[in-house]
Amino acid sequence: MIIVMRQQVTPTEIQETVAVVESLGMKPHILHGVERTVVAAIGPERDGMKETFEQAPGVAEVLPILAPYKIASREVKREPTVVKAGSLTVGGGTIGIIAGPCSVENEDQILKAAHGVKAAGATALRGGAYKPRTSPYSFQGLKEEGLKLLAKAREATGLAIVTEVLATEDVGLVADYSDVLQIGARNMQNYRLLEAVGKTKRPVLLKRGPSATMEEFLLAAEYVLDGGNPNVMLCERGIRTFETHTRFTLPLATVPYLQAKTHLPIVVDPSHGTGHTYLVPSMCLASIAAGADGLIVEVHHDPAHAASDGYQTLNLQQFADVVVRCRKVAAAVDRKI
Amino acid sequence: MIIVMRQQVTPTEIQETVAVVESLGMKPHILHGVERTVVAAIGPERDGMKETFEQAPGVAEVLPILAPYKIASREVKREPTVVKAGSLTVGGGTIGIIAGPCSVENEDQILKAAHGVKAAGATALRGGAYKPRTSPYSFQGLKEEGLKLLAKAREATGLAIVTEVLATEDVGLVADYSDVLQIGARNMQNYRLLEAVGKTKRPVLLKRGPSATMEEFLLAAEYVLDGGNPNVMLCERGIRTFETHTRFTLPLATVPYLQAKTHLPIVVDPSHGTGHTYLVPSMCLASIAAGADGLIVEVHHDPAHAASDGYQTLNLQQFADVVVRCRKVAAAVDRKI
Amino acid sequence: MIIVMRQQVTPTEIQETVAVVESLGMKPHILHGVERTVVAAIGPERDGMKETFEQAPGVAEVLPILAPYKIASREVKREPTVVKAGSLTVGGGTIGIIAGPCSVENEDQILKAAHGVKAAGATALRGGAYKPRTSPYSFQGLKEEGLKLLAKAREATGLAIVTEVLATEDVGLVADYSDVLQIGARNMQNYRLLEAVGKTKRPVLLKRGPSATMEEFLLAAEYVLDGGNPNVMLCERGIRTFETHTRFTLPLATVPYLQAKTHLPIVVDPSHGTGHTYLVPSMCLASIAAGADGLIVEVHHDPAHAASDGYQTLNLQQFADVVVRCRKVAAAVDRKI
Amino acid sequence: MIIVMRQQVTPTEIQETVAVVESLGMKPHILHGVERTVVAAIGPERDGMKETFEQAPGVAEVLPILAPYKIASREVKREPTVVKAGSLTVGGGTIGIIAGPCSVENEDQILKAAHGVKAAGATALRGGAYKPRTSPYSFQGLKEEGLKLLAKAREATGLAIVTEVLATEDVGLVADYSDVLQIGARNMQNYRLLEAVGKTKRPVLLKRGPSATMEEFLLAAEYVLDGGNPNVMLCERGIRTFETHTRFTLPLATVPYLQAKTHLPIVVDPSHGTGHTYLVPSMCLASIAAGADGLIVEVHHDPAHAASDGYQTLNLQQFADVVVRCRKVAAAVDRKI
Repeated sequence: MIIVMRQQVTPTEIQETVAVVESLGMKPHILHGVERTVVAAIGPERDGMKETFEQAPGVAEVLPILAPYKIASREVKREPTVVKAGSLTVGGGTIGIIAGPCSVENEDQILKAAHGVKAAGATALRGGAYKPRTSPYSFQGLKEEGLKLLAKAREATGLAIVTEVLATEDVGLVADYSDVLQIGARNMQNYRLLEAVGKTKRPVLLKRGPSATMEEFLLAAEYVLDGGNPNVMLCERGIRTFETHTRFTLPLATVPYLQAKTHLPIVVDPSHGTGHTYLVPSMCLASIAAGADGLIVEVHHDPAHAASDGYQTLNLQQFADVVVRCRKVAAAVDRKI
Repeated sequence: MIIVMRQQVTPTEIQETVAVVESLGMKPHILHGVERTVVAAIGPERDGMKETFEQAPGVAEVLPILAPYKIASREVKREPTVVKAGSLTVGGGTIGIIAGPCSVENEDQILKAAHGVKAAGATALRGGAYKPRTSPYSFQGLKEEGLKLLAKAREATGLAIVTEVLATEDVGLVADYSDVLQIGARNMQNYRLLEAVGKTKRPVLLKRGPSATMEEFLLAAEYVLDGGNPNVMLCERGIRTFETHTRFTLPLATVPYLQAKTHLPIVVDPSHGTGHTYLVPSMCLASIAAGADGLIVEVHHDPAHAASDGYQTLNLQQFADVVVRCRKVAAAVDRKI
Repeated sequence: MIIVMRQQVTPTEIQETVAVVESLGMKPHILHGVERTVVAAIGPERDGMKETFEQAPGVAEVLPILAPYKIASREVKREPTVVKAGSLTVGGGTIGIIAGPCSVENEDQILKAAHGVKAAGATALRGGAYKPRTSPYSFQGLKEEGLKLLAKAREATGLAIVTEVLATEDVGLVADYSDVLQIGARNMQNYRLLEAVGKTKRPVLLKRGPSATMEEFLLAAEYVLDGGNPNVMLCERGIRTFETHTRFTLPLATVPYLQAKTHLPIVVDPSHGTGHTYLVPSMCLASIAAGADGLIVEVHHDPAHAASDGYQTLNLQQFADVVVRCRKVAAAVDRKI
Repeated sequence: MIIVMRQQVTPTEIQETVAVVESLGMKPHILHGVERTVVAAIGPERDGMKETFEQAPGVAEVLPILAPYKIASREVKREPTVVKAGSLTVGGGTIGIIAGPCSVENEDQILKAAHGVKAAGATALRGGAYKPRTSPYSFQGLKEEGLKLLAKAREATGLAIVTEVLATEDVGLVADYSDVLQIGARNMQNYRLLEAVGKTKRPVLLKRGPSATMEEFLLAAEYVLDGGNPNVMLCERGIRTFETHTRFTLPLATVPYLQAKTHLPIVVDPSHGTGHTYLVPSMCLASIAAGADGLIVEVHHDPAHAASDGYQTLNLQQFADVVVRCRKVAAAVDRKI
């Protein structure tokens, strides 16, 4: 249930309402909006509950949550959530640009990427230290060594670090070195991992699984939100379809769809979404025109020699050109980078 | 094979080259570019053919066509094809905006739509007189009566008419009344129909089948081109995937993909591509940012009472607002409407 | 509406009921079952109609038809429809085996195929005279010459002929030479063609389009039935999915699904459904175990030199082996070939 | 590389060959066949390696492994792998029948299911103690309490226990109570989990992810095999497609495809594969006819009141009937249950 508090509600009243929620065996989530604070009460509902909540101090009205996802729903929070992590802002009219290589390979490579994407206008650095690979015999990432190199790159450029975490047991370590925890598409329904990142303070970039429905995607986000972490970015990265001229099919209508259903910001990944360098620039522009709150783009100083994903990676010049064009489209839809 | 003519080639030389092509049992297609004229020789290739063509008068060079589609291929014609039909221009930096109701219902309705979309900035009027319907028991269109009403709407507004033709036997009649012949998604591989419209002078808007690959789509266009009609517009209208929050999945990466492979202009249909009015505006903007040469949008003066497709139709005010926003995005990507 | 007649209804009573249906502007379809005759009244329903029908002579009860397809629905006809065409019986416990080459190539080839598949146990011969080809430059079939060769093969073997018709204008000719008119997957929603075969007396084998839903498929059949032709066989031939190890994905659950929804018999095409010779035998067995009423299988005396589809074609020995195994599985599910 | 040993090879020779493999930095996997033993050498290959292996004692020949998956490949092991776990045998002509409820709910329920499915002919009991649920607010299983109940059911019936493990940290506990560790579709690419079950002695039932390609599926199995656990069963449970009349699309051609590519046994899950009770029996029969080595079927003594998945669950009588029919089809394809 959504408990909407009065406009001049006091912290004490909120606390008391939270206590009422807990006393009925429900889990409270406080969501602070600009105009209103809302307490979402999550759990099995019983008769008479609505009336009890209505009598709690400072309560304006009590409404049901119709969507299967609760805390993620626009019903609970009208205003868009803005996620901030160091240099990165995603949402609220600001488009975050996360760029960098697929994998962290070595110090020289990640520093070149970091300086290059920063100069071009990126607002965060991506790079994989733990790499989930389809084959057990492929390069699995530099692991902690990679995290250290990412931290160096942040020191050198000031860019926030976005990097993937693969396993519950690594969450603490990855959170120590990075600014945003990425959950990869393969792990979108790895619920223990979602719960684990839900308990950290780091913002989460949650990638859509390649055959996930919108409801499954939002319910995956709900696992993180329900764990206590309100800073979730949803990332559309393409779905599996019959198409073979692209690696995945990038369905941009998910951007306005999700914006209608959730307050969480939406990031698009045109690199995985197309799988071909020459298609990435157009899809960056289209994503922004569709209303995306952020982009995550694979960029390498030398894509032909990248350890992974070179065929879908921009070089630094290509990326710089794209950012210039993105700024124009962003301005045309009243947003800024 | 592609026979590239010299820059100062004379009509006589082209004629002689065509005769050589025919004498070897190949079918010639002349494609006039700004800088160069090309003769595509289509048919079974034999040893020695290349050398024979090279000796024809006015020939600069002879190249193989690698793609399975020939006349549609960028290999044969580097410059983008611009399709013009009355008030409508699609391609070459100009974005055509085709708008109007799903079905022609009556004179009042089609005139309201025509005046409304024209005032908002549309450059052509769409409307179905022959409607392919999933059920034999649904409204199948006003047929010739509908064509007459479309012609009236053209008279009243000057807008070019885009309307669907369903069957070989109707091609002549539909061509008489309209400016562009639309081939619907269900008929993308109705080869007799493609051959029939290939023999007319009317430009063709060819919609992608919902499970067609890019190669199948371009080969369908090739049927029209091979029939002798060079004015084909390709229309992406969404594909069948597992997604259910949209009617179809609109894969905008087809726009830059097709632009790399073919010189034909690309139109996007965000109405069928999403199936929901509230998603159409964002996808119009995204299509233009992705590089589309045109849009085809369902617009009705009263969508709630439309005979078909009301749930994915914009009203006149919504359409007018979208066109204003489209112009801004078009300008941001150096195009105009 | 379904007008169920009394058990001892007379032809006159049926005629009178039909007249009542027509007098109310509805279209009557008479379906004779073993126990009951039903008159399906198709058209726009109005208040009071049910009561009027209930008072017609010989009427037992009047029920609504809930499915969007009417004449195809199990609601209208409980007993399975058995389609017979010369040597071929499909349905009612008898599994029809339609086998032969993709294309008719020449007399020697089609006669070898016909004799071979007959000896192996096939109950009908397939072979394409009109071939819908993805590329305009591929072999399009021998056309009428091919039909004549098929007729010769029938004369020589007694096998019923199943062959595709592509266009309205060819329906009469193809019907003259063949026993079953096949509508290919590309034409499943070519409604004029469906109407045209609906007006013939020849049974129709209707292939599912590769992205057609069950409702679209049954409504396509409804076009044929509504045209007056009750002998429609539905053919599952695989759908477009993300899978690439098979040409299409063959979803056999459509067999029991369709049997629950319609009285029409279901044929499966494991050749197109898999696209690989080595997968065809297992899928023949699986289709029969799933309850299919028939199989349509590509067989050629020399697949390596077939004009089309050789990679998914069985040779005569492979086909003979499969039929032996099919008989065993058919017996295990209380059916016979 | 595949190092094929001579027929009369001694254990010492195998040991020495293994040592050679390790000395070159490769990882050895010994695969014992009936006729031949093979040592698969996995790792980065270098020039001269093949020759070195050829000179090791007892070596007959050295071949490259062409498939991206190595130990899973038929190239490495020609004979089918038979997986045994208590009462369950899967492969080698014996079809394993794993049946039971979606979730373990309570002692009464799981014992009723266990006794019922055993009486009907099941050879193992399935039941979820740890349930991955799309929503964080759904029932997540009885966890260790559920494992204990499963162990009781095994005690009572002698049936081997198949149950899902969701997380690395639970692997030891689940392995203690169960006979087969199931990896669910959502976790097919949870590589840490695959590595963890690869280190146990328990056979693994690996479910295909709903959008996994065959290569991704086999490489997921490879993670388990490479971890040292040779007993992997592959489970086809349906894929995400555009179809909506079934929960997933069950593509049975994967059975013969996988049998051509891998020696691992293939199990089919018609419950998730269709999502509707009335479709399950036909698909059980079809799976066996297609060549499946096992079935996993949801069965509950009272599906209408099941805690989860009731709509796709058979009751005990339906299951008993299906097993009778399955035996007949199995006999028809020369297999036994």
